[in-house]
Amino acid sequence: MCGIVGYIGDKEALPILIDGLKRLEYRGYDSAGVAILGDDLHVVKTAGRIKDLEEKLKGTKLIGHLGIAHTRWATHGIPNDINAHPHYSESKNIVVIHNGIIENYLELKKMLMKEGKTFRTETDTEVIAYLIEEFYEGDLLKAVQKTVSMLEGSYALAILSKEEKDHFVAVRKDSPLIGGIGKGENFVASDIPAVLPYTKDVIIFENGDIVDVFKNKMVIYDKNLNVIERPIHKIDWDISDAQKGGFKHFMLKEILEEPDVIVEALRGRIKNGEIEIPELDFDKNYFKNINQVYFVACGTAYHAGLVGKYLVEKYLNIPAQAEVASEFRYRNPVIDERTLVFVVSQSGETADTLAALRLAKEKKAKTIGIVNVVGSSVAREVDKVVYIHAGPEIAVASTKAYVAQVEVITLSILHLAKIIDKLNEANEKLFVEEFQKLEGFAREILENKEEIASFVSTTKNIEETFFIGRNLDYALSLEGALKLKEIAYVHAEGYPAGELKHGPLALITPNSLVIAIDTFTPLSDKTISNIKEVKARGGKVLAIAKKDNTRIKEVADSVFYIPNVLDDLTPIITVIPLQLFAYYMADARGLDIDKPRNLAKSVTVE
Amino acid sequence: MCGIVGYIGDKEALPILIDGLKRLEYRGYDSAGVAILGDDLHVVKTAGRIKDLEEKLKGTKLIGHLGIAHTRWATHGIPNDINAHPHYSESKNIVVIHNGIIENYLELKKMLMKEGKTFRTETDTEVIAYLIEEFYEGDLLKAVQKTVSMLEGSYALAILSKEEKDHFVAVRKDSPLIGGIGKGENFVASDIPAVLPYTKDVIIFENGDIVDVFKNKMVIYDKNLNVIERPIHKIDWDISDAQKGGFKHFMLKEILEEPDVIVEALRGRIKNGEIEIPELDFDKNYFKNINQVYFVACGTAYHAGLVGKYLVEKYLNIPAQAEVASEFRYRNPVIDERTLVFVVSQSGETADTLAALRLAKEKKAKTIGIVNVVGSSVAREVDKVVYIHAGPEIAVASTKAYVAQVEVITLSILHLAKIIDKLNEANEKLFVEEFQKLEGFAREILENKEEIASFVSTTKNIEETFFIGRNLDYALSLEGALKLKEIAYVHAEGYPAGELKHGPLALITPNSLVIAIDTFTPLSDKTISNIKEVKARGGKVLAIAKKDNTRIKEVADSVFYIPNVLDDLTPIITVIPLQLFAYYMADARGLDIDKPRNLAKSVTVE
Repeated sequence: MCGIVGYIGDKEALPILIDGLKRLEYRGYDSAGVAILGDDLHVVKTAGRIKDLEEKLKGTKLIGHLGIAHTRWATHGIPNDINAHPHYSESKNIVVIHNGIIENYLELKKMLMKEGKTFRTETDTEVIAYLIEEFYEGDLLKAVQKTVSMLEGSYALAILSKEEKDHFVAVRKDSPLIGGIGKGENFVASDIPAVLPYTKDVIIFENGDIVDVFKNKMVIYDKNLNVIERPIHKIDWDISDAQKGGFKHFMLKEILEEPDVIVEALRGRIKNGEIEIPELDFDKNYFKNINQVYFVACGTAYHAGLVGKYLVEKYLNIPAQAEVASEFRYRNPVIDERTLVFVVSQSGETADTLAALRLAKEKKAKTIGIVNVVGSSVAREVDKVVYIHAGPEIAVASTKAYVAQVEVITLSILHLAKIIDKLNEANEKLFVEEFQKLEGFAREILENKEEIASFVSTTKNIEETFFIGRNLDYALSLEGALKLKEIAYVHAEGYPAGELKHGPLALITPNSLVIAIDTFTPLSDKTISNIKEVKARGGKVLAIAKKDNTRIKEVADSVFYIPNVLDDLTPIITVIPLQLFAYYMADARGLDIDKPRNLAKSVTVE
Repeated sequence: MCGIVGYIGDKEALPILIDGLKRLEYRGYDSAGVAILGDDLHVVKTAGRIKDLEEKLKGTKLIGHLGIAHTRWATHGIPNDINAHPHYSESKNIVVIHNGIIENYLELKKMLMKEGKTFRTETDTEVIAYLIEEFYEGDLLKAVQKTVSMLEGSYALAILSKEEKDHFVAVRKDSPLIGGIGKGENFVASDIPAVLPYTKDVIIFENGDIVDVFKNKMVIYDKNLNVIERPIHKIDWDISDAQKGGFKHFMLKEILEEPDVIVEALRGRIKNGEIEIPELDFDKNYFKNINQVYFVACGTAYHAGLVGKYLVEKYLNIPAQAEVASEFRYRNPVIDERTLVFVVSQSGETADTLAALRLAKEKKAKTIGIVNVVGSSVAREVDKVVYIHAGPEIAVASTKAYVAQVEVITLSILHLAKIIDKLNEANEKLFVEEFQKLEGFAREILENKEEIASFVSTTKNIEETFFIGRNLDYALSLEGALKLKEIAYVHAEGYPAGELKHGPLALITPNSLVIAIDTFTPLSDKTISNIKEVKARGGKVLAIAKKDNTRIKEVADSVFYIPNVLDDLTPIITVIPLQLFAYYMADARGLDIDKPRNLAKSVTVE
């Protein structure tokens, strides 16, 4: 996730672009840059936040009425000055800004290098600029059209050429892009807030759109450069909502991004119908001596690791455990060079997790990082890192990062299983098909989100609750409970459904609410028995179950149905109603959802 | 633990003995028996409860004014008709009932077998009857005196001889025994309730007392048969309290038994200054291939297993995990013949635990049972069983069994560490010394129990609380929280202290109570930092800490101090204030402590 903005018009471009970037900073904030085309083409960029870019711009004179700007959330190449956008073509005549991931950039880069090109950055974006130059024959639009036909992946692009000072070109595929229609000026941006102070007339571009932006017109083409029309929307948001894309809270916005996050985390990891995580280039022999696998993390990331524990045992047939980093780091865990340790952290800076990672390395374990922030401490220090590409998460309570963590952990385990010949073709095929259904499943759940809201409205005064489940549903019950604690301040506890009768059942009365997660089909009957134990004591039960679960409605008071997802992939989408439950509960109680009391986003102290 | 009762007087002995047994049934109920000396000596005994004995007595005519009776809680030999007390001497002229454990019975038995004696039972008790007969020269008292001089262990005995119809002899060492002084009748019993309907005048015998009981007198001797005096106490209990030994609830009674339980669990397991669990007769070579250790259990026993996990890793240097049985049994855990599985169950009949045990065996793992009930299903099916000897636990919420489980697990791990040369002499010596301090430490804590009661009186209206701790204190925090849930119906959750900031801290307000367990010295500073996080949000903190913890009183609102116990033995005594906290909280709320709603003692369904 990055933020891009482009401007052409009567005014000075720079202040408008910087202002737009600030409104997109939620989309990324590890580096920023701007290109202004006036008498000459000028590019200024820097690692850091937009205020760092402003600092760097002081004393420079970037005069011009056309420009593009970028705020970055690194995916390829750590955040530094060089990897910051915009990126030049080889001759520096063309500049590009990009939000998305080019899946085939390595192949394209290799091809261009064979032709003798040298590259300046570690990004996937740079090949786009080089390719456009390759195709450029005095017509930027055509060069862009030829270039995008070669790109695989996701991209929102804005491109300008030193030689064409009256327009710039933008493209959209699988990354958001809008246009803003002004008077004597036009805009493109990753999100509406960037243009809202200047115009309320907005075009939502669609996949494949190539847009030629002039001061007084904006022409939209399809991939064959046939002109097409898109409707103009009148935006009636309050400016104060704008950063959140019109949503009341970042948390809801981020939950609603989950279908996209599912796609991004999968991007480039299924190729030709095969699961492939190139970052995990292990040798088959390495696994001969591996006798245990650990997942070490804190909070929500720890719950993602718990899912990993189950899947490692199932698919790698190696004993596995998940452990809270603050516990792991302060005992003397029995690990050595025969141990593989997964370290899970959204920020990559969690102090306890980082210390646990260092302990694991000291003990000669091999380490894999599952990380969101590119170039973060965890990412730098692990032996291998797999990024989750969830984009910046602003709300303190983690939602979309969990979805991406679980998805990437699952993909990684299946990839490792392939290395050691423990995933047969039929199974891989099944997984590939089912992974590709997840985005749609997530959208389906989100379409029904009002069901959760209306259930919450009947139970918003609860003081405590249990989340129960078995196997993967138990890992989910811990995460569901944590969300409710974090933002709704309701004492919620996740419990293995079969353990209720060994104690917590004493708390169940007709005033109790139990959230029963019953999406792991093989144990559904067992969970239904546990639901009956709760019902026998008068407790109220909200069940989360798959559509094909026909028995559940006879025992639970309410059921939220999710699509019939493959069992081992359930956590990726079953968590969505749990997140929504916590969100609506907190909202019904009028709480400060994005900044819950006492908590910080990235816990860099122990 | 067993119950014994003896009678001599004008009345028919049998109904009085049966009545007495019923009042002692809380001490054991797996088999029962009676011996009546009238014209002849008759013994009737059976596996089962006292009502089964009554059934068996129907149609028999046991006439006589002298008799002894026993209700059993098996320690040596499974509960069956043959192992039930009373036990005959070889000639059947002498009968003995016994509560306690004879530590050197195997040596004595071997010696007697060399002389040509044949034994009929698997009990430790039978050797006592045989020895008395060996020494018998027409004077039962003298024969008993000689015999007890050879016994090591604990025993409350009642003995009668067919040839001496006007008296019987009783002895006490380390097992309770009282005398009841009636009019024309005298009694002995394990506990006061047995005699309360007949007399309020009671003598509390002391260790080493040998008592000669006649119809009209009771003569007390020391071990050299010098006559000694013991005071007579007037008992003013209500008969309805009697079964609970004057306590309001079994739970409190069982907590107060913990110092004795600590001694019983240790009995025979430290010999000549060395830790020795003969049941675990593993070969050193066995451990060469062991690559993981599991603890599988439910509820409180699972929390005892968590302590085991930490200690296995520390002392055996083998990766270990503790897992809830209902989860373990329904996944496909990666275990094989290289796995050692500890199965922990008070009753030995917990359905989920039993199923987990069977799964472990099916997968060729070696299994060790940590069990209270002798001859129970778990005890029968494991490869090796180590009994905890905690005696019957009547209250549904487990207290003394946890203490004994943790103690026996710790001893077992140290014993295994010796086998593989991972416990050096100095360390073993230290442990032996520190184990022997535990009884005194437990008594010291119980003497200060009113401190807990008075703290509870200030916080009895709390609705939810967290128990926090690190390492072994984390395992304790889970158990402390479970007790509070079970009997006080307060939503309490145990949390690793370092994880609070990853979510639950959001729940902390000035109305919150946090129980911080800070007895694991190496991490005390870290836990104190976490207490400060709670204090900074206004939460109230009760800390459980060692006396030598000087910093804690500056950060916590209240501190309950425990003695300076060795770190790795803390769980055995630190749990006591946690149990008392739950008990007093439940009592302050007027709840049915011994039978909490919705729960059963031994969960024999899944």
